[in-house]
Amino acid sequence: MVIIMKTGATGKEIDAVVARIESMSFRAHAIYGEERTIIGVVGNDRPLDRTIFETMTGVETTVPILKPYKLASREFKKENSIISLFGNGTGVKVGGEDIVVIAGPCSAENRQQVLETAHAVKEAGAKALRGGAYKPRTSPYSFQGYGEEALKWLAEAREQTGLAVVTEVMAAEQVPLVSQYANVLQVGARNMQNFYLLNAVGMSMKPVLLKRGMMSTVEELLMAAEYILSNGNYNVMLCERGIRTFETSTRNTLDINAVPVLKKLSHLPVIVDPSHATGKSEYVTSTSRAAIAAGADGLIVEVHPDPSSALSDGAQSLTPEQFGDLVRQTRRIAQAMDRQI
Amino acid sequence: MVIIMKTGATGKEIDAVVARIESMSFRAHAIYGEERTIIGVVGNDRPLDRTIFETMTGVETTVPILKPYKLASREFKKENSIISLFGNGTGVKVGGEDIVVIAGPCSAENRQQVLETAHAVKEAGAKALRGGAYKPRTSPYSFQGYGEEALKWLAEAREQTGLAVVTEVMAAEQVPLVSQYANVLQVGARNMQNFYLLNAVGMSMKPVLLKRGMMSTVEELLMAAEYILSNGNYNVMLCERGIRTFETSTRNTLDINAVPVLKKLSHLPVIVDPSHATGKSEYVTSTSRAAIAAGADGLIVEVHPDPSSALSDGAQSLTPEQFGDLVRQTRRIAQAMDRQI
Amino acid sequence: MVIIMKTGATGKEIDAVVARIESMSFRAHAIYGEERTIIGVVGNDRPLDRTIFETMTGVETTVPILKPYKLASREFKKENSIISLFGNGTGVKVGGEDIVVIAGPCSAENRQQVLETAHAVKEAGAKALRGGAYKPRTSPYSFQGYGEEALKWLAEAREQTGLAVVTEVMAAEQVPLVSQYANVLQVGARNMQNFYLLNAVGMSMKPVLLKRGMMSTVEELLMAAEYILSNGNYNVMLCERGIRTFETSTRNTLDINAVPVLKKLSHLPVIVDPSHATGKSEYVTSTSRAAIAAGADGLIVEVHPDPSSALSDGAQSLTPEQFGDLVRQTRRIAQAMDRQI
Amino acid sequence: MVIIMKTGATGKEIDAVVARIESMSFRAHAIYGEERTIIGVVGNDRPLDRTIFETMTGVETTVPILKPYKLASREFKKENSIISLFGNGTGVKVGGEDIVVIAGPCSAENRQQVLETAHAVKEAGAKALRGGAYKPRTSPYSFQGYGEEALKWLAEAREQTGLAVVTEVMAAEQVPLVSQYANVLQVGARNMQNFYLLNAVGMSMKPVLLKRGMMSTVEELLMAAEYILSNGNYNVMLCERGIRTFETSTRNTLDINAVPVLKKLSHLPVIVDPSHATGKSEYVTSTSRAAIAAGADGLIVEVHPDPSSALSDGAQSLTPEQFGDLVRQTRRIAQAMDRQI
Repeated sequence: MVIIMKTGATGKEIDAVVARIESMSFRAHAIYGEERTIIGVVGNDRPLDRTIFETMTGVETTVPILKPYKLASREFKKENSIISLFGNGTGVKVGGEDIVVIAGPCSAENRQQVLETAHAVKEAGAKALRGGAYKPRTSPYSFQGYGEEALKWLAEAREQTGLAVVTEVMAAEQVPLVSQYANVLQVGARNMQNFYLLNAVGMSMKPVLLKRGMMSTVEELLMAAEYILSNGNYNVMLCERGIRTFETSTRNTLDINAVPVLKKLSHLPVIVDPSHATGKSEYVTSTSRAAIAAGADGLIVEVHPDPSSALSDGAQSLTPEQFGDLVRQTRRIAQAMDRQI
Repeated sequence: MVIIMKTGATGKEIDAVVARIESMSFRAHAIYGEERTIIGVVGNDRPLDRTIFETMTGVETTVPILKPYKLASREFKKENSIISLFGNGTGVKVGGEDIVVIAGPCSAENRQQVLETAHAVKEAGAKALRGGAYKPRTSPYSFQGYGEEALKWLAEAREQTGLAVVTEVMAAEQVPLVSQYANVLQVGARNMQNFYLLNAVGMSMKPVLLKRGMMSTVEELLMAAEYILSNGNYNVMLCERGIRTFETSTRNTLDINAVPVLKKLSHLPVIVDPSHATGKSEYVTSTSRAAIAAGADGLIVEVHPDPSSALSDGAQSLTPEQFGDLVRQTRRIAQAMDRQI
Repeated sequence: MVIIMKTGATGKEIDAVVARIESMSFRAHAIYGEERTIIGVVGNDRPLDRTIFETMTGVETTVPILKPYKLASREFKKENSIISLFGNGTGVKVGGEDIVVIAGPCSAENRQQVLETAHAVKEAGAKALRGGAYKPRTSPYSFQGYGEEALKWLAEAREQTGLAVVTEVMAAEQVPLVSQYANVLQVGARNMQNFYLLNAVGMSMKPVLLKRGMMSTVEELLMAAEYILSNGNYNVMLCERGIRTFETSTRNTLDINAVPVLKKLSHLPVIVDPSHATGKSEYVTSTSRAAIAAGADGLIVEVHPDPSSALSDGAQSLTPEQFGDLVRQTRRIAQAMDRQI
Repeated sequence: MVIIMKTGATGKEIDAVVARIESMSFRAHAIYGEERTIIGVVGNDRPLDRTIFETMTGVETTVPILKPYKLASREFKKENSIISLFGNGTGVKVGGEDIVVIAGPCSAENRQQVLETAHAVKEAGAKALRGGAYKPRTSPYSFQGYGEEALKWLAEAREQTGLAVVTEVMAAEQVPLVSQYANVLQVGARNMQNFYLLNAVGMSMKPVLLKRGMMSTVEELLMAAEYILSNGNYNVMLCERGIRTFETSTRNTLDINAVPVLKKLSHLPVIVDPSHATGKSEYVTSTSRAAIAAGADGLIVEVHPDPSSALSDGAQSLTPEQFGDLVRQTRRIAQAMDRQI
């Protein structure tokens, strides 16, 4: 941390800051400039609350030097983390050379729809099936998901196809039940800072797909991951799903920069959700290509056998045919990156 | 809802949309313009998922006409809702002529700090005490609150001062315990779309202080309130606490426009939190005055006996003296609005 | 400036940075921490381009210490600047105890409309008349203003009423002509970083009303002011007129925080434009009260004798009656702040 | 346009709106719903100011149906526009199968730097040279460009290499001079709504590279293009260069969605500027790949022989070697899209 004193801060004020730093077993280095004094704080690696100093008289502001996350950082672990979706080291792995495509309906609507979609996306090249059993909806009057029944349909689809199952968990108390059926627990964008839930999935040891909040920074996403990792669960995949901006021509704005930024700052795999990031099916394939070209490790795509009858998110869902085309196009991009789908 | 067809949509495509509308027991009115056809949908008042139509061929886009919330709307209830913080119709009331100031520390840190602050803010003119027992923190390594012990300090402070107690509840399973001690359950900004929690506080019948998510629109705030109201709990206070924008000179941007907008769209009381909305104690008093002048029904302000030793949010906390000055200044503004503090 | 080295930066890399600093006649102070080294740069007060260091190997990032503006800063001039709108030290003054209200139509549409509005706003308490002769419009097909003819109507209105005239100048080459008629040159939000224009109004010595760009930070606004001041023209009024955010219930979001922030950072007067900041006439009065309560030195309000027939901005224009009410209400707030309108 | 009446609007209010529509030679179609009446407006294709209706009593809001731009729209011209940079139909063309890379320094700093960079980027595969002679800088104290001298260096580089020259024009009065030397006039992000300048470049008939404002919507970008097109100059290239959001880990956020959105809405070529969109050289290559994969027609990249000595934008400039690598990688992506660099 660096503490920047106000222009005209007195020697007494500077001394008080130095004394406080030293009282906390850190060391203080004051640099006296023409206009201002700045004070560097070094010492042990305990986190230090900057606001303690920001309230002292004579202090203008403080600047952090260290990143606030550790376990999620590339500095902590140099090599890429590779997550085994079946949790036993075999089968589908995310974060290595292979690019993994997760696909399926927004909501699991009935057994027939789930099984039909699962077979279709499997054939097209998907390695995992997504589908919502519990749906976070802005309106209390919207469809809220079929719960455990839907989880059973997803598990049956896994048996038939071998696809791993990815589904959302909305509250800590759902974790045990959802874990019985799912391979990967998804934490939704609106729950990215539901710290209760983060602790709960952190204790479950299941692989977690952690979606970035629609107005959360990259650093906050990594802090949310840190909650899970610090509970001992290292199987975390980060998911960029579009952020909220002033632009209205798409539902959200895919932050494509976040892909290389996350790959630089963290060892965790990065998945992109082009369906939510654009909100319109017509833009899903082009942004999927872009995501892979930017260096993403996988995609999660909404596919529905009949988007116009979907109970949710129809406008951004692809038909199985469109999804087949998406896989063919992104595969060519993957090859141009020396990777495979 | 209005459906806007693409330029050049065929008669067949238009007919298909009309047929679908009618199959759902709504009525369709097509208007044939020079360049485009638009189709008005009218009929029963069931919510209608617009995306069903957005995926049909020939459709450009759809436009909602009705607001997606009902119980929270001014159209549903013309007169202002007045919430009794003690829940029995006596004592402090929010939403009427009186402006209510809630004050206290970010975190309840120890019995002494809570009692001292309670007496100080009571004397300065506050009617309710805030204080966190469970703290949502961005970092897993930050202080997370003293839990039930802190709730007991708050309850003791209420006994000594008569102040109502406002404190945050972070998960559905905390609702019963927190309800034993608190008068008002606060739902924090990061949990504004934690629908599990909204349902839980909706079933509790305790007054709720619902904070706007830093990334949420006014409409989403009203939809979150609708979750609570639709569970039968009408005692909801809306809290504007600053939104996230590109501006970095303050921690958040106080959306002062939201005050008259919420008062127009809804009958629920509006509280402003200038401490989080600015993030710096030096701007809290001026924005408090602005909030009252804009028509807010109350304030929630962070006060700490010694901000520089606070375990959280020290930089935005006022001393009791500064808070006394804030009350004096906002009282003058309130009087200029023919209201009282 | 502080330079933060990467974890693991070598002694050689650190030496290279130090050498570069010294080659530019600054002094370098390295602080060796447990994980990182940081280097403070002090010395003469020339601006120093931080990116020079950000591209050196071993450097993580740099942090500025000094503010990038000088003449606009409160540190440069402690007392409030007071601007005389008639430029001769007499008549209307902005930035002192009096709160100044500028009012008038978005566009000057015809002689009759300008004169009628001028008399009405004068009577209600306005001290200056606004009105656009040159209109920056998003669409090339929209009304673009009546040019010099409109300037003549405004000048005639000044003769009849004694109101100062505030009008927009859109390009450097318009400055001489507009200066013949206007008392105050307005630089519009879309031109806040039109540096050519800033230099031109800086050389004109006329008072300038500088509107914050809808996408510009407080710091960028002060840098734009610095362009004008550095040309020798100190008669600059800063205008907060709403910023662009994700919220859609109002046209822009009034950044009320910016009022106390600007008053702290700068000695220049701060004017608020509630008409553009909300975009809806029904919210103009409440946000005007808030602006004054936050500490603004004045308001600029759109008033039209018949808003529904306005050639531009009708939805946010007040009638003369509504404006009279606005002045009465804000006057009470001003008095509660020990100021007058 | 559709006009949405308030719940409870009277028959008289509805009649008044209908009468006004008809008085303007449009036709009105009222649809009477359970809760509200909506009124469709159809008729001639003159632009109609919606605010005229928004101020009438009983009107809740209005919704536009037609896009506000014409000449820039895909509906106006189905096939892609192809722009010849040398303006004579020969040589480099943008918007067809070939992907065009424009490269060079942020600022033209001296003859040697310009010529050296030109030869290097030419060899690596660039087809045009960028370089600033007039620099829009946030601070009046920053380097502002070498003006006409720099233009001469650029022209000499063109003679030696055959590269087209792209350079920024900051004000209408610079257009004649810059046009003597440059092949393409660049309108910078800060000037995207400098309508004076847009008209001037529209009258020049030179190809224009129009950069999106950092907080301008896709629709506003197309409206700015419409200004140029409506002056008769159809040689417009749209440039996505990153937008301003809340995210701070990169300088701007590359709006990758805008690439397919612009290609859908408009026939004009789309260029991406990954240097400004990320602000850090380490992210330029990955986002360049993403831009091409998303469907962009070209790139504009900052290259400097020695970034750490650059007078501006050093942190985001590539060395010639890094640029060579960028071209090799993006060429593979282009091939996977059946295009060439």
